[in-house]
Amino acid sequence: MSFSRALFLLFPLLSLAFSHENLDTHLLPRPLIIEYTDKVETHLEESKEEEVILRCTSWRFSVEANNHNPWKTIPEECAEYVRDYITGRGYGMDLQRVSKEAADYAKSLELAGDGKDVWIFDIDETLLSNLPYYAHHGYGLEIFDPVEFDKWVDKAIAPPIEPSLELYKEVVGRGFKVFLLTGRSESRRKITVENLINAGFQDWDELILRSTDDHVKLATIFKSEKRGEMVKEGYRILGNSGDQWSDLLGASMSTRSFKLPNPMYYIP
Amino acid sequence: MSFSRALFLLFPLLSLAFSHENLDTHLLPRPLIIEYTDKVETHLEESKEEEVILRCTSWRFSVEANNHNPWKTIPEECAEYVRDYITGRGYGMDLQRVSKEAADYAKSLELAGDGKDVWIFDIDETLLSNLPYYAHHGYGLEIFDPVEFDKWVDKAIAPPIEPSLELYKEVVGRGFKVFLLTGRSESRRKITVENLINAGFQDWDELILRSTDDHVKLATIFKSEKRGEMVKEGYRILGNSGDQWSDLLGASMSTRSFKLPNPMYYIP
Repeated sequence: MSFSRALFLLFPLLSLAFSHENLDTHLLPRPLIIEYTDKVETHLEESKEEEVILRCTSWRFSVEANNHNPWKTIPEECAEYVRDYITGRGYGMDLQRVSKEAADYAKSLELAGDGKDVWIFDIDETLLSNLPYYAHHGYGLEIFDPVEFDKWVDKAIAPPIEPSLELYKEVVGRGFKVFLLTGRSESRRKITVENLINAGFQDWDELILRSTDDHVKLATIFKSEKRGEMVKEGYRILGNSGDQWSDLLGASMSTRSFKLPNPMYYIP
Repeated sequence: MSFSRALFLLFPLLSLAFSHENLDTHLLPRPLIIEYTDKVETHLEESKEEEVILRCTSWRFSVEANNHNPWKTIPEECAEYVRDYITGRGYGMDLQRVSKEAADYAKSLELAGDGKDVWIFDIDETLLSNLPYYAHHGYGLEIFDPVEFDKWVDKAIAPPIEPSLELYKEVVGRGFKVFLLTGRSESRRKITVENLINAGFQDWDELILRSTDDHVKLATIFKSEKRGEMVKEGYRILGNSGDQWSDLLGASMSTRSFKLPNPMYYIP
C-alpha cells in the first residue's frame, strides 16, 4: 500500500478525530481516557458547584422572603456562596437597590408638615455595617457570640452602609421625623451615638435602645411595642428600614417596609 | 512507504491534535486570529451576561422581599433570566423549599381540635400554575391582559403546583380548616372548582372569591377584610400561603406567612 493510499484511507479518520472529540476513545484508549477523565472531573466539579449555587440561592430567597425561620447559622455548604455574595458585587448592588426603592417612595410622599411623619431605621446591618466583625467569624457560619460581638461594638468603628447613609440624608432632608430603633442595649447608648456620628449620621429625633425590661422580649415584640407607642403619640409611620423581618413585622407596622439583605444572621 | 510506516509518521501529529487543541494554532495562523477575536468577544459576551444575571438576581430579590412595588412587567433585560429561572430548576427548587418550610411549621403545631385553626391558600401561582399561559406571554414581559387570561382560566386546565399540592394534603390531613382565598371573580366559581378538582385538590372548607363589590378593592384590602371576618368568627389563622405579598400583608395577618416565588407579575 502506498503512502498516499494510506493517507487517503486515514484522512476520513483524521478529520473525524478533529471534529468529533468523543469518537477518539475508540482509537486511542489510553491518553484519551486520561483526557476524558479530566474533563469529566472538571464537569463534575462545575456541576457540583452549580448545584450548590442553585441550592444556596434558593436558601437565600427563603431567608429574604421570611419563609425560613428561625435559623442559627448559614448552611455549611453555603459558606463560600455567602462570602462571595457579601464580598462580591451582589450585596452592594442589593443594598443600593433597596436604598433607591425607599428613596423613590420617600420622594413620592407629601408630608403633612406637622412633624408627625416618621421613618424608622434599624442600626446594625441597616445603618452601620458589622462586616469587619463578621469577616472574622465566617460571615454567619459561626454561632453568634454576644460577648465577642459586644467587644466589637464597643470599639465604635463600624462603618456606615453607604446607600443607607444616602437614604438617611434624603429622609432627614425631606423633613421626616427619624427614629432609630435598635436591639442594642441601653448600656450601649453612648458608644452607639459615637459610632453613628463617626459614620456620618446626624439629626435623628430619637434613639430607642432596649431597656433592662426589654431584654427578655423577642425583637419583634419589643419593636412592635415601641412602634405602638409612636402611633399612640400620634405619629404616622410611613417608612421602616431594617435587615431583619423582626424590624418590620408585628403590630403597628409601617405603611411601607424596606428589607435590607442579610444572609448572615437571623434575629427572631 | 508502507501503511504501518505512514501510520507511525502520522501518530505524533494525531496524538498532538487530540491532546493539545490550542497548539494547532501555531501551525495554522489564520484561524488563530479569528479564534482570538472570538475569545475576546466571548469573554465580553460572558461578562455582559454575568452582569445582567447579577442585576436580574438583585431585581428578583427586591421583588420577593417586597421592596420593589408596584411593577407592571419584568425588566426587558431580565426576559431571558426570568424564563431560565422559571423553566429551569430554580423555580421548582424554590417551590419545593417553601412547601417544606410550611409543612415543617404545620407539623410543629398542636391544633386545638375545635375546628378553628385555619390555613389559607391563594390559588393562582400558589395552588394552580398558569405557566402554560405565561409561556405564551413572555413570562411576565407582556403587560397583563385580563381578557386573554380569562380565556385561559375558563379552560380549567391549569396544572397543580405539585409541592403545594403536597403541602395542601398535609395541612388537610392534620385537621386544619382550609380556606381558599382568591382574587378570581365569583363568576368563575364553577370553573375554578372544576380546575381545582381536576388538579387533585379536594376537601377545602371554603372557597372565597371576589364579589362584584370587591372588584374595586386592592387585593391587600379585599384579602385583609376576608381574614378579618374569619378572625371575627373565632378562627385562628395559623398559616397563609401565597405568591403575592397582597395575599399575606395587611390586617388580620396569619401567624406565619409563606411567600411562594413569582417573578412574573405583581398584584397590589
